[in-house]
Amino acid sequence: MAVAYDPDNIFAKILRGDIPCVKVFEDEKALAFMDVMPRADGHVLVISKTPGRNIFDLPAEALSDLILRVQKAARAVVKGMGADGVTLHQFNEPAGGQSVFHMHFHVIPRWEGVALRPHGGAMAEPALLESHAAKIRAALD
Amino acid sequence: MAVAYDPDNIFAKILRGDIPCVKVFEDEKALAFMDVMPRADGHVLVISKTPGRNIFDLPAEALSDLILRVQKAARAVVKGMGADGVTLHQFNEPAGGQSVFHMHFHVIPRWEGVALRPHGGAMAEPALLESHAAKIRAALD
Repeated sequence: MAVAYDPDNIFAKILRGDIPCVKVFEDEKALAFMDVMPRADGHVLVISKTPGRNIFDLPAEALSDLILRVQKAARAVVKGMGADGVTLHQFNEPAGGQSVFHMHFHVIPRWEGVALRPHGGAMAEPALLESHAAKIRAALD
Repeated sequence: MAVAYDPDNIFAKILRGDIPCVKVFEDEKALAFMDVMPRADGHVLVISKTPGRNIFDLPAEALSDLILRVQKAARAVVKGMGADGVTLHQFNEPAGGQSVFHMHFHVIPRWEGVALRPHGGAMAEPALLESHAAKIRAALD
């Protein structure tokens, strides 16, 4: 697990504004934005602003800050998307399902009887992501 | 989502000691124990000692406390089980995959090329769970 954090991973580039994202909310501790390969409509990623590869190396305070933003996102996606529930996924190292090595949580709205789409599936249209983000932003506390 | 917490759910009974568990660690904030239907060897559940149905209603401080115990468990399962990574799952409401309505995280060790066993699969032998718990306990910081 002793692998160094790579400051050029794609989420670090999003945090620096070098790569665009469809933003849901942002504060001094975290950024929430739409997953471009959503496993369900309204699938949000919440990432820490503290550099950390995953749960093994993220400092405790940053992890506490992050989970509170995950909670905020979970409440907003349910309300904004009219979902029945939420599934959280968080992947650590390739064997754990991780493909971007910057600490993040997946916040996935769920509906009764609707299975998740495959991980790493089709890219969503930017206009669709924006319309979902607008609904979620409108539901933020 | 406005469903009341049921103090007679199975995890509340485990916290009260009314139902046994194979314990990994416990402190004033949380309890970590072996999932009796492990999706991989070493699958641990980490539950809050604060009553809460799921991420929608758990108080912020209890959620922060809980995720730090999840981090502790994640580090220990990787080291103790010799895993290559960890997958976290956290389910909210039935549509989100939740079946016990007391806030909990699944901490699942992963190995390269090994798929998860099905959710809600076979019960593990208590002796096997105990042998895995012993390895994880020995790896706690």
